[in-house]
Amino acid sequence: MQSDQPVTDAEIFGGHEGGKLSVAAARPIEHARDLSIAYTPGVAKVSRAIAADAALAQRYTWADRLVAVVSDGTAVLGLGDIGPSASLPVMEGKSVLFKTFAGLDSIPLVLNTTDVDEIVETLVRLRPSFGAVNLEDISAPRCFELEEKVKAALDCPVMHDDQHGTAIVVLAALRGANLVLDRSIGDQRVVISGAGAAGVACARILRAAGVGDITLLDSKGIIHPGRDALNPVKEELAGQTNSAGLTGGLPEAIRGADVFIGLSSATIDEDLLSTMAPGSVVFALSNPDPEVHPDVAAKYASVVATGRSDFPNQINNVLAFPGVFRGALDAGAKAITENMKLAAADAIVGVAEEDLAADRIVPSPLDPRVAPEVAAAVAKAAAADGVASGQ
Amino acid sequence: MQSDQPVTDAEIFGGHEGGKLSVAAARPIEHARDLSIAYTPGVAKVSRAIAADAALAQRYTWADRLVAVVSDGTAVLGLGDIGPSASLPVMEGKSVLFKTFAGLDSIPLVLNTTDVDEIVETLVRLRPSFGAVNLEDISAPRCFELEEKVKAALDCPVMHDDQHGTAIVVLAALRGANLVLDRSIGDQRVVISGAGAAGVACARILRAAGVGDITLLDSKGIIHPGRDALNPVKEELAGQTNSAGLTGGLPEAIRGADVFIGLSSATIDEDLLSTMAPGSVVFALSNPDPEVHPDVAAKYASVVATGRSDFPNQINNVLAFPGVFRGALDAGAKAITENMKLAAADAIVGVAEEDLAADRIVPSPLDPRVAPEVAAAVAKAAAADGVASGQ
Repeated sequence: MQSDQPVTDAEIFGGHEGGKLSVAAARPIEHARDLSIAYTPGVAKVSRAIAADAALAQRYTWADRLVAVVSDGTAVLGLGDIGPSASLPVMEGKSVLFKTFAGLDSIPLVLNTTDVDEIVETLVRLRPSFGAVNLEDISAPRCFELEEKVKAALDCPVMHDDQHGTAIVVLAALRGANLVLDRSIGDQRVVISGAGAAGVACARILRAAGVGDITLLDSKGIIHPGRDALNPVKEELAGQTNSAGLTGGLPEAIRGADVFIGLSSATIDEDLLSTMAPGSVVFALSNPDPEVHPDVAAKYASVVATGRSDFPNQINNVLAFPGVFRGALDAGAKAITENMKLAAADAIVGVAEEDLAADRIVPSPLDPRVAPEVAAAVAKAAAADGVASGQ
Repeated sequence: MQSDQPVTDAEIFGGHEGGKLSVAAARPIEHARDLSIAYTPGVAKVSRAIAADAALAQRYTWADRLVAVVSDGTAVLGLGDIGPSASLPVMEGKSVLFKTFAGLDSIPLVLNTTDVDEIVETLVRLRPSFGAVNLEDISAPRCFELEEKVKAALDCPVMHDDQHGTAIVVLAALRGANLVLDRSIGDQRVVISGAGAAGVACARILRAAGVGDITLLDSKGIIHPGRDALNPVKEELAGQTNSAGLTGGLPEAIRGADVFIGLSSATIDEDLLSTMAPGSVVFALSNPDPEVHPDVAAKYASVVATGRSDFPNQINNVLAFPGVFRGALDAGAKAITENMKLAAADAIVGVAEEDLAADRIVPSPLDPRVAPEVAAAVAKAAAADGVASGQ
């Protein structure tokens, strides 16, 4: 039964009692014959076959379709570095969503180390156990280095969802808003507040998608080449964004901007929104408290989105990651390329287009059409990029 | 439908198509409210609660009841060192049995390293992800060192099943046979052929259970203190077994013995069986080919057992490990002690006693009474040993 009342603590903790996952046997063991097939002596034939031809593991084990959901608990939701055990409910939740929306099996692996090289080494050792890695809730800037190293070390799909899941859905939402407003992405100036995992990945995907100009801010203000002590990722983005050469803070950045994307826990003052270009787009994605209440933002913006399920236009990673991994695994992809991410955004827009409006720029997170469409588009892009099985 | 025909390759490979496991959500996600409970924003409250009180992870995640089934693929069934991917069907099979007989969730972790310290290190890093470790199919003598190191490094139940699962069921079977034959374990001379994981663990548990004398053989013959180049484990056992001071091979060992336990892939000649004491007991446990056909052994022995499901008296680890881990986890045990293993054997004998006969010295592997009885006995022993939760 659904209720409009806020979810209670009793519901939340009750919904976590004993954890949120279970492992099931694909086929029941009822008779001695079942045991002889699934275990000794039958299993020996399967093991021997895989030992003779490693490719058979894909067919006769679950590993090649299993996603490892990996976290060190250093940047869990908006809660920060709360450690691996406290991150586990989030990782179990990811596994529930992988199963629910994409029919994918996954296992949470939460790690008692925050050392990037140790995490890479651990995943290399575990490689025969899984078929893909979803990195999750790992603090920036470590997450950038970690993802690069894991991708280099493993011949399978790897994606840090806080970066790319968010980026895919933000791109899809911006394109949905542009369709509603009949605008072109190349003409727009976009302000991104927050240069952590999500902010950096959004800046990168929006560049790749052809956004006219991007101004990226961290807690110290606009990122530009004249700033001291930028980390390597920000240094790189300083040279690729902010073509107007702005300096200063949010007031300087947002004046005349077409799009504001909030990806930090900062708040944004109503006065600043009033300085944006007419008919602006505001994505206030901080969770659980948006940078600005959507009703306030709507006074100035033509399209408003948040990360919350209780307002329209919910920009939620669940629109992306189940289908992205499903498509990558269906294709037997060795990696997740930039084109696969762009294709995922396209597919989300495609579903949204069937029912587009200013308060429906993205599909509902529960829309069952999304993951299959994303998966199909991602698998096609994998083949086009030459990373699919046998390529 | 059951059939008396041997299991076919088509049945075996068909029964492994896509793997044998799946991960299921404990509660369905159907409405936005379900998403708000299992994922954002609800899950943040659970993560925050665990961050504040680590003990709550036990209640609100699956980790504390999850068994990691860990192998490096170096000693898989009788197939030897076939590597981690080829071992995975066996580990998936273990997980199926954990679920079927003890209702326990488990995940196979197969490792791309055979270095003992690297395996320990990997499990230490993964510690927050699981609640117990079942080591499996790891070659001797590395398995002895590995198990000791993993036990020392982790504050949770750890058991190498090829050692202790086998040992528990062999002890139970010997006690069942003794009940049928009305004999006392303290009077018996037992010959164990094979000094790998199972042989060593059987020698140890039979000593602990009070067997009168044990003669242990490896591929070079009887293990005694005068032998050169014994590994540390065999060196230790050389000082604790063979009180008659025998030297030589199987002919010298088996003459006049009461019990023969075959735990190697060797065969045993009919002539040798004829030299055993009258009314002997023969456990020919090599798989899939017993050291001697049970019909041949029965010409000389009063009780015969094998590891196979198609002969009576099947000595199979599945009688032990599901209940052992279930009992240890139910008790919140920090370790699996020797008394917990002895209690498991007692419990198996207890079930067998209800229906005891020369061809029913142990219960059927499918007997649903076994795992709960074993679990209860193991949990009780954990409390008595002071390793249960809060002790």
